[in-house]
Amino acid sequence: MITAAIVGGSGYTGGELLRLLIDHPEVDVTQVTSHRYAGNYVYQVHPNLRRRTELKFTPVEELQKTDVLFLALPHGKTQKQIETWVEKADYIIDLSSDFRLRDADLYAHWYGHDHEGPEWMQKFVYGLPELYRSEISKTNYISGVGCNATAANLALLPLVQADLIDVSRSIVIEIKVGSSESGASGNAGSHHAERSNVVRTFSAFGHRHTAEVIQAYGLKDITLTLSSVDLVRGALATAHVSVKPGVTQKDLWKAYRQAVADNPFLRIVKERRGIYRVPEPKILAGSNYADLGFEFNPDTGRVVAICAIDNLMKGASGSAVQSMNLMLGFDETLGLEFPGLHPI
Amino acid sequence: MITAAIVGGSGYTGGELLRLLIDHPEVDVTQVTSHRYAGNYVYQVHPNLRRRTELKFTPVEELQKTDVLFLALPHGKTQKQIETWVEKADYIIDLSSDFRLRDADLYAHWYGHDHEGPEWMQKFVYGLPELYRSEISKTNYISGVGCNATAANLALLPLVQADLIDVSRSIVIEIKVGSSESGASGNAGSHHAERSNVVRTFSAFGHRHTAEVIQAYGLKDITLTLSSVDLVRGALATAHVSVKPGVTQKDLWKAYRQAVADNPFLRIVKERRGIYRVPEPKILAGSNYADLGFEFNPDTGRVVAICAIDNLMKGASGSAVQSMNLMLGFDETLGLEFPGLHPI
Amino acid sequence: MITAAIVGGSGYTGGELLRLLIDHPEVDVTQVTSHRYAGNYVYQVHPNLRRRTELKFTPVEELQKTDVLFLALPHGKTQKQIETWVEKADYIIDLSSDFRLRDADLYAHWYGHDHEGPEWMQKFVYGLPELYRSEISKTNYISGVGCNATAANLALLPLVQADLIDVSRSIVIEIKVGSSESGASGNAGSHHAERSNVVRTFSAFGHRHTAEVIQAYGLKDITLTLSSVDLVRGALATAHVSVKPGVTQKDLWKAYRQAVADNPFLRIVKERRGIYRVPEPKILAGSNYADLGFEFNPDTGRVVAICAIDNLMKGASGSAVQSMNLMLGFDETLGLEFPGLHPI
Amino acid sequence: MITAAIVGGSGYTGGELLRLLIDHPEVDVTQVTSHRYAGNYVYQVHPNLRRRTELKFTPVEELQKTDVLFLALPHGKTQKQIETWVEKADYIIDLSSDFRLRDADLYAHWYGHDHEGPEWMQKFVYGLPELYRSEISKTNYISGVGCNATAANLALLPLVQADLIDVSRSIVIEIKVGSSESGASGNAGSHHAERSNVVRTFSAFGHRHTAEVIQAYGLKDITLTLSSVDLVRGALATAHVSVKPGVTQKDLWKAYRQAVADNPFLRIVKERRGIYRVPEPKILAGSNYADLGFEFNPDTGRVVAICAIDNLMKGASGSAVQSMNLMLGFDETLGLEFPGLHPI
Repeated sequence: MITAAIVGGSGYTGGELLRLLIDHPEVDVTQVTSHRYAGNYVYQVHPNLRRRTELKFTPVEELQKTDVLFLALPHGKTQKQIETWVEKADYIIDLSSDFRLRDADLYAHWYGHDHEGPEWMQKFVYGLPELYRSEISKTNYISGVGCNATAANLALLPLVQADLIDVSRSIVIEIKVGSSESGASGNAGSHHAERSNVVRTFSAFGHRHTAEVIQAYGLKDITLTLSSVDLVRGALATAHVSVKPGVTQKDLWKAYRQAVADNPFLRIVKERRGIYRVPEPKILAGSNYADLGFEFNPDTGRVVAICAIDNLMKGASGSAVQSMNLMLGFDETLGLEFPGLHPI
Repeated sequence: MITAAIVGGSGYTGGELLRLLIDHPEVDVTQVTSHRYAGNYVYQVHPNLRRRTELKFTPVEELQKTDVLFLALPHGKTQKQIETWVEKADYIIDLSSDFRLRDADLYAHWYGHDHEGPEWMQKFVYGLPELYRSEISKTNYISGVGCNATAANLALLPLVQADLIDVSRSIVIEIKVGSSESGASGNAGSHHAERSNVVRTFSAFGHRHTAEVIQAYGLKDITLTLSSVDLVRGALATAHVSVKPGVTQKDLWKAYRQAVADNPFLRIVKERRGIYRVPEPKILAGSNYADLGFEFNPDTGRVVAICAIDNLMKGASGSAVQSMNLMLGFDETLGLEFPGLHPI
Repeated sequence: MITAAIVGGSGYTGGELLRLLIDHPEVDVTQVTSHRYAGNYVYQVHPNLRRRTELKFTPVEELQKTDVLFLALPHGKTQKQIETWVEKADYIIDLSSDFRLRDADLYAHWYGHDHEGPEWMQKFVYGLPELYRSEISKTNYISGVGCNATAANLALLPLVQADLIDVSRSIVIEIKVGSSESGASGNAGSHHAERSNVVRTFSAFGHRHTAEVIQAYGLKDITLTLSSVDLVRGALATAHVSVKPGVTQKDLWKAYRQAVADNPFLRIVKERRGIYRVPEPKILAGSNYADLGFEFNPDTGRVVAICAIDNLMKGASGSAVQSMNLMLGFDETLGLEFPGLHPI
Repeated sequence: MITAAIVGGSGYTGGELLRLLIDHPEVDVTQVTSHRYAGNYVYQVHPNLRRRTELKFTPVEELQKTDVLFLALPHGKTQKQIETWVEKADYIIDLSSDFRLRDADLYAHWYGHDHEGPEWMQKFVYGLPELYRSEISKTNYISGVGCNATAANLALLPLVQADLIDVSRSIVIEIKVGSSESGASGNAGSHHAERSNVVRTFSAFGHRHTAEVIQAYGLKDITLTLSSVDLVRGALATAHVSVKPGVTQKDLWKAYRQAVADNPFLRIVKERRGIYRVPEPKILAGSNYADLGFEFNPDTGRVVAICAIDNLMKGASGSAVQSMNLMLGFDETLGLEFPGLHPI
């Protein structure tokens, strides 16, 4: 068995990693750190894990060497201490935003300050297997993915890979997100009485995850606009693009079918009947699937491309475990079998 | 006192009209029809009105002449019977979609069939005072407004009236809506277990309310995309537009301030601090306000313009009562004082 | 016009008082204090009041004399400073728990410490008009009510006043509450991601509001058990009692009809058909009504008595304004006309 | 591999059975019937199963012999056709209420009509392993469990098995339930706009599941009162009982620890700190755990005993699969490993 440790295990991303790794057939999670909850059983913070593990949180200072190290720290912390972390494990998966970008200028532009470990930026592979499966299989260092970036990147993936987009036209991606995105500690606006029933466009321009979409596809004229909705887990990206002249509905189907054939966690949802005709995040809670759909207006060449994910799974911990599987040579889907619930 | 009657009073729009008219100081609502609930007290269907009125539903066949007639029938019914309705009242307000469009071709294109009372199309004024205050004051026939159209039209209003939009660029309007939009009878997809926690992009292109936005401003390259979210009352429109070269943040503020100065139910919500920095529909439940906001990216000339409304109020019954006030020469805001709740 | 001031106006109770008083025809609210938000417009905290008032929060130190003073401070603060407050106004309404109990021992038992202004305990009248209408009309000092106590007290009121309860049997009152009960500042458990979808029995025994039910009716063997549910505004009390031998369904109806006849804000909800057959808090959001219902099992003599309220209205600010109306000789229902919404 | 078939697979219970059996290591689900959806892929109805199975619904008339037959038909249907079903399979698990009671009189009293297959009533074992593990292991015919009955039965289980309850005192069990309890077809009251934000005590007395609690423990003076809350999956039972004189907190802990030691899917949740101090159904969505808790008032001898379950899992399909495992000699927990999610 491979041993794994999670640094920063009390947050939502850490909890989801724990859930996945505890049941992973090839990995034995032996350490979980938390400053605040050191000494507590992990199930006191993640109550779903009661009777599933007797692990306790430990102080990060007591971290022992391990095979795989998952870093789930607040953004900005990993880059300062990266030299320390690499001594602890051969394989590192950093779920923060610190090593998602490979370009120091892009980082400085979107994060408003220089990167503090620039020599390490190139050593990390962006941990979205749908984009970098081959590179992930050969690296020891993987970055996490932004959840909103992932919804956007996967919404566009079939269109980009089939080269159908008219890049001279503006791309608008509207993303609706659940409250787990704001993390376990919350803020004034995440108080239930304020956050319930909400539709709140909290970021019209300038969300940092935009950088990960620019990096992925080289698209320039692209806007990510984010709205909070009344949901705990889930993100839905609705991308508005123009396709090249002559592109047909058939071309679109072909592009989507290819994407699904290439990737075990992508699904097309495009039904003519029933309740679930389009991708919806709610049925993906706990699942690593990304559900894709599209609508085409042949009169105008406009496409609405949709992607639904669980922000804590495909948008964070699920993609991390999927990447770990590839990095360690396991089956890509190992430990990621839970299909989600209906109804929920 | 002016007498009023509501035809089709058991639906959500009818119930909201009842709530408003029961407390209206100048109007006495004396008749409410319902085929299904004839003989029942209105409070048995609209439980908030218990102890506020002893009105019962009557069959529409028993409708007596009245001063003002509100028609809240399913779409398609009014246009066939308009000759009958005009005999019942001097003033008609039709909340269905039947008389919203003035152009028979536009109707045929978006509704998929010819209008059945085309000679009456021109006689109705579109009941959005923010667009047609003067005309409403002089007419006897007012049409209702589409709730999504209203969110979109008011989102764009300051920009259009100040002539700031670059109409050569595509306009994308994303609208998130609550479940009361689907009406009181619901459908398979509105079952709580399926509709709860939902983010469902149910209409990417082709929603009929698009026609009302095209008619309002003459915009051609415009897409309305609608998503259901977990909310009962409310609609939020997020409009993505490009402004003309040289337009500044100051120009935008001026345009919004002018719109608010002209219209008692518009408000600008654009704060730097606090929880409520942008327009949100939840605090508008029961209120006739439309809250407007905007964000500007000066590097790209892109604007995200936002409008939040209660779909049953500003998007239906509230605008109808506001229009009635203007038509009958009352103060525009009469009976529409409820400001909404916080928290909710 | 009577002038009013609100001390502690940034919380939910304060915001609701503001909403009610701004539109009250006989009262002019001229001061609102807040330590944290001094200098801000009240609509920056209570966004529903935008364009309805230009009032700003002021520091409590700047409070000027006023006719009526509403105190909406955290529990425990008023009792220490009561001598100061009575110098500021002839009429005081304290919405905290500080002056709800008249018995120092009862206070000490349920609050775990001695009262710090015991000589003032007897001077305040408990501000629930359904119990103390006459006393409220003659006093200058009114205490607020506990929201859960109010739901429980009104659930039992018809049965107690008609002397139908078998007091030798245990009384169990289950109360389900919305998140606004925990106040505007929230806590770890009120983070949306934790509080959403919740059914959490957070207090099985010992909730302080129990004391207000004991005081109201002299009942000894009574348990209040509280559970959080996924709702912002509202409380539903379901009381399980045994009635005296021989009590019939007819006796129960008579008791409930009497209660409603005596009190303008009580309603019976007990329908055989339709969706709204029993009291439900959701349709009461913003309303001062308390909806009552009951079910009787003649085989066992057990009664389930139900009361639904909006915890911020009948359970706090609404009862306070209703009490103010009585104290100042206005019509009891003045400024409390909003009936609630359907749907919501 | 054992083959299994599901009759009535389009409902929520059927969907959950499918989810569990598709991933069950010892069972191969080969047939799923549905009248309405015959010919459709099961993932068109249960969208979480897309890419997990290519099964289609078939008409029940085409049902072939199988090893294990799960019947998920509307209540009342199985009892009429039981002779037909037993010809189709050696092992039958009927998830309806038809064979839950063993006493024809009890059935007639609570269901209002005579049982139509009385000679079969004794042949079925009630499918709650926590009560009948041994009998289930030896039978070929298992009945399903009522979800509310299960929440109530497991709430009381530790107290009954340790003989701590004072049965001379009334027992009140309040149960709060999610909308999935009303089934996939819904009703007028389950329309999202009516069911959202709801706290609705829809059954004060007389719920049919009460019979299953009476049968389990022989308790006579017991009331189950049910309230709908805003939740899709989940049920929380809060039982109010008196314990015998002399019972201590220590006795209670011992009773609970014994129950957990005996049963792999029971857990005690009773923490002094943190958010999750008591059982909550939300974190159990998709899980077969039943979380138990209690509070004791030594002054009065009153106990509040709590049980949280997922009504579709431990309250239906999960217990059915657990029972199947026992009946077929597999490990009791096989295929039931999913622990639930946090947050959700």
